[in-house]
Amino acid sequence: MKAEIIVVGSELLTPDSSDTNSLYLTHKLNEAGCEVHLKTIVGDVQKDIEEILQQALQRSELILFSGGLGPTMDDRTRAAAAGALKRPLVPDPEILEDLRRKFASRGFKMSPNNERQADVIREAEILENRLGTAPGMWIEEANRYIVLLPGPPRELQSVFEHHVLPRIRKLSGGTRLETRSFYITGMTESELDTQLAPIYTVYPRIKTTILAGTKHISVRLYRWLRPGDDIEDLDELASRIQEKIGPAIFSTQNESMEEVVGRMLRESRNTLAVAESCTAGMLGMHVTRVPGSSGYFQGGIQCYSDTAKTELCGVPADLIRTHGAVSAEVAEALAIGVRNKLHASIGLSITGIAGPGGGSPEKPVGLVYIGVSDGVDTLNRHRIMPGDRESIRERTTYLALSWLRRFLMKKTE
Amino acid sequence: MKAEIIVVGSELLTPDSSDTNSLYLTHKLNEAGCEVHLKTIVGDVQKDIEEILQQALQRSELILFSGGLGPTMDDRTRAAAAGALKRPLVPDPEILEDLRRKFASRGFKMSPNNERQADVIREAEILENRLGTAPGMWIEEANRYIVLLPGPPRELQSVFEHHVLPRIRKLSGGTRLETRSFYITGMTESELDTQLAPIYTVYPRIKTTILAGTKHISVRLYRWLRPGDDIEDLDELASRIQEKIGPAIFSTQNESMEEVVGRMLRESRNTLAVAESCTAGMLGMHVTRVPGSSGYFQGGIQCYSDTAKTELCGVPADLIRTHGAVSAEVAEALAIGVRNKLHASIGLSITGIAGPGGGSPEKPVGLVYIGVSDGVDTLNRHRIMPGDRESIRERTTYLALSWLRRFLMKKTE
Repeated sequence: MKAEIIVVGSELLTPDSSDTNSLYLTHKLNEAGCEVHLKTIVGDVQKDIEEILQQALQRSELILFSGGLGPTMDDRTRAAAAGALKRPLVPDPEILEDLRRKFASRGFKMSPNNERQADVIREAEILENRLGTAPGMWIEEANRYIVLLPGPPRELQSVFEHHVLPRIRKLSGGTRLETRSFYITGMTESELDTQLAPIYTVYPRIKTTILAGTKHISVRLYRWLRPGDDIEDLDELASRIQEKIGPAIFSTQNESMEEVVGRMLRESRNTLAVAESCTAGMLGMHVTRVPGSSGYFQGGIQCYSDTAKTELCGVPADLIRTHGAVSAEVAEALAIGVRNKLHASIGLSITGIAGPGGGSPEKPVGLVYIGVSDGVDTLNRHRIMPGDRESIRERTTYLALSWLRRFLMKKTE
Repeated sequence: MKAEIIVVGSELLTPDSSDTNSLYLTHKLNEAGCEVHLKTIVGDVQKDIEEILQQALQRSELILFSGGLGPTMDDRTRAAAAGALKRPLVPDPEILEDLRRKFASRGFKMSPNNERQADVIREAEILENRLGTAPGMWIEEANRYIVLLPGPPRELQSVFEHHVLPRIRKLSGGTRLETRSFYITGMTESELDTQLAPIYTVYPRIKTTILAGTKHISVRLYRWLRPGDDIEDLDELASRIQEKIGPAIFSTQNESMEEVVGRMLRESRNTLAVAESCTAGMLGMHVTRVPGSSGYFQGGIQCYSDTAKTELCGVPADLIRTHGAVSAEVAEALAIGVRNKLHASIGLSITGIAGPGGGSPEKPVGLVYIGVSDGVDTLNRHRIMPGDRESIRERTTYLALSWLRRFLMKKTE
């Protein structure tokens, strides 16, 4: 069943606040077999809400409203829905009585504007709101279902869980969404799409998305299942992707790169020390986001200045003079040095030019070197990273982790 | 001018991710005198995007798209906009050349699907994207303005700032939103509101918001101005707030704490070294987010293990045995030690229990000590931070910076 969500509230059109009800609703709707294909955030303007509902009735079977059911002049959802559906609003004596009781029990006298909350769209089913004053509504109109829910998250969730979800489950007849995910490193988004498009386009019933972030690229497969459907095609596509780009996939379990590397370090009984020049702590910070990382992370040196590189990481001053602080030689010396100083089994280093200043024609902004050493093998790698200072540093941090992963993979082969 | 934002991306219709670009755009549009009256989030479905744009053209003067301009099969915004506007897509030879250059400079060969990014809607103005491959577009159609922006936030912001904002300012004819902002540290949100509410409620034409984050609390004042309006009341309220909570305000210029501290270090000709236990690099990473921080940041030691504390930061092993690694004594010894090792004028240290494990009744999860030393004075401070591991680390990092600010203020009094 195709669903859309309409979130009502002028405060959600300011720079400072953002809707979260739709995330909850999407999660529950997907589980119940409904796909959310559109979300709209509209202000407390009756005409605007009415228009959006008219359009929604053309394109969606299930339409959920969040908010705008309260007692104030700003709360326009009831009137707008009545307008779009061309049905009158009728005061419901039972709700009115219930409202009076709720106010009295809290020692308040009900003000007249609260009576508005007892207005019901003709032929709507009332959805009781145990946690607040404004009840929800369930309306059927020419094979469309329109649901009005209160805006406060606890009230919305309670009304949805108790009164809406059972109705939707019945309507969707057992349909559900099954997903698979892959986190990928060391390829660009378009390289990846070039390799995967010929595979995933063969499975039109599976929706494949490729999304690039600074940390990694994620590929997700979505497949709607009806009762009796099996997930053979989903598993088949997943294993064909695995075959095609196997080593580039570092997780199929939504694990972050730092979790994967942490697990590998723990399992191979290695310990890690880091030397960070341009990232100045970002690598260590990410490694230690994982609870229990003290089991394998010894620490590091933020060797931002040349003095820190020579005195604390033991890089010969000559090496810096000859090759420059941003060089393959210094990256390797840093990895070796920090490994020794911190008594770790593996040293990992970053040195680079994060910009905006400090670049030259031979060594442009974005040039980064990564070094790794386990005392037997010492290697380095470089890359020119795109983007601004912060994005260069983030990409470099994740490249270092990604490269450490490959180093550990080779070592345990 | 009435604006609406259309955010494109199927991933933004899942329960796992939510759009942030529209918050940035709303902020900037408001400043430039445009009110955002509608936001839509639509999947990567050409027909759906086309339909939304057709409806948007009926109701909004300015329509901004975020996302869907990349090279993959999923990226449908260009084609959908061309369809709704009934204009052809034409490959632009200059963009094609530029794309090839960008790929070559990073040592990659451009795959054919990237050529799609050079397709331009006829008569659209190209908006250069310095940080990515997909350029934006500015299209005029029957007194409507349609803007296509790339989805990655940094790219969107860069294109918007350089190419869209100046055009919008010209169009909005002088109406603008004037704002004042205060970044505050060292108070809780409710303490702050108790002090400020009696002041700001006197100015009904100014909208005041108080928003608490992990880094700081921000207070913002908003006032819509038409040509000829003056901003006396805004300036008056701003100076009354300044009078009331002066020392707690660290910036009125949207400067981050690391920028403020960096400026103070530079102006007082101090240099800084950091010793980080539980934050393991987060402090150094934030200090060096500021371009030019190499002028005052010497580096640091990620003393995650006790060995790193004793061997690299010179903390006596006895001190750790007697007081524990998370203690006032060790925090001070770390500040002194790292200051010496890195030849800095000021040492700043963090040691704490970020959790989830490692807490005890005497030293619970969240307990953090911060030490600071300039060779003359050595001080420490502790706090029990709320939240999870990551939020404890972030709050501690910002508390350390905030405390360094007060230390520098006293020194220069």
